[in-house]
Amino acid sequence: MMDFMEEAIGQAEIALKHDEVPIGAVIVKDGKIIAKGYNKREKSQNALMHAEIIAIKKACRKLKSWRLDGCSIYVTLEPCPMCSGAIANARIARLVYGCEEKSSGDNLCEKILSSTRLNHKVEIVFDEKYSEKCGRLLSDFFKNKRK
Amino acid sequence: MMDFMEEAIGQAEIALKHDEVPIGAVIVKDGKIIAKGYNKREKSQNALMHAEIIAIKKACRKLKSWRLDGCSIYVTLEPCPMCSGAIANARIARLVYGCEEKSSGDNLCEKILSSTRLNHKVEIVFDEKYSEKCGRLLSDFFKNKRK
Repeated sequence: MMDFMEEAIGQAEIALKHDEVPIGAVIVKDGKIIAKGYNKREKSQNALMHAEIIAIKKACRKLKSWRLDGCSIYVTLEPCPMCSGAIANARIARLVYGCEEKSSGDNLCEKILSSTRLNHKVEIVFDEKYSEKCGRLLSDFFKNKRK
Repeated sequence: MMDFMEEAIGQAEIALKHDEVPIGAVIVKDGKIIAKGYNKREKSQNALMHAEIIAIKKACRKLKSWRLDGCSIYVTLEPCPMCSGAIANARIARLVYGCEEKSSGDNLCEKILSSTRLNHKVEIVFDEKYSEKCGRLLSDFFKNKRK
């Protein structure tokens, strides 16, 4: 079976090459990748251009629907509130993330994805196997920035 | 002084004409509207196309920056988690909303906007003066849908 988190990491590595914070995402339906995205905030100078948002936009276009029923999204980092909300709004069934967001202790991703607001709950999977690899991409990036 | 919530309501009324859930937003900088948006989810079949997201994208383009420092966003309805997160990510200074989101009691908008994650807190103003008008637009829309 194809390892979708490896594909998300591949997207993060593209972001890195463009000197963007290395975060990547892929969306999977019926065992196939239907959309990919990597963080483009700096190049686009658009606050919305996170990896998840780009992938969701492409997936909606591909399925010709704002509802991404039955889809899973694989992201290298636990999503921010904007992206968590977008995942819920698009009715994505499952989120798999590679490493935890440690900059806050408020657990907003889980709160947003389990909110009863939409009568839709997103299953959340923390993919520990990739945690170190996904985290190292980010910590190396910020370490180099501070040099 | 121009009443910016009236302008946001004007955007919601455009959404209504297109048979979209009537929600509108405007972004203001230095006393001038720099971007407008209305909900286009159905027409675009894109889960991201909320009024606030459209306005933020336009404002970033206009200011050529992902940072919307010193900007205020006026929205007819208390933003969902995705839009609340986008407002924080774009470093918008102030949110003014017309009516409260009553479909959940989890207060996520406030939690997201006051999260310490970004070292940025968004001031939140509930504009009671327009609450009834903004709310009636929505309730009339859903009442007609159920007919």
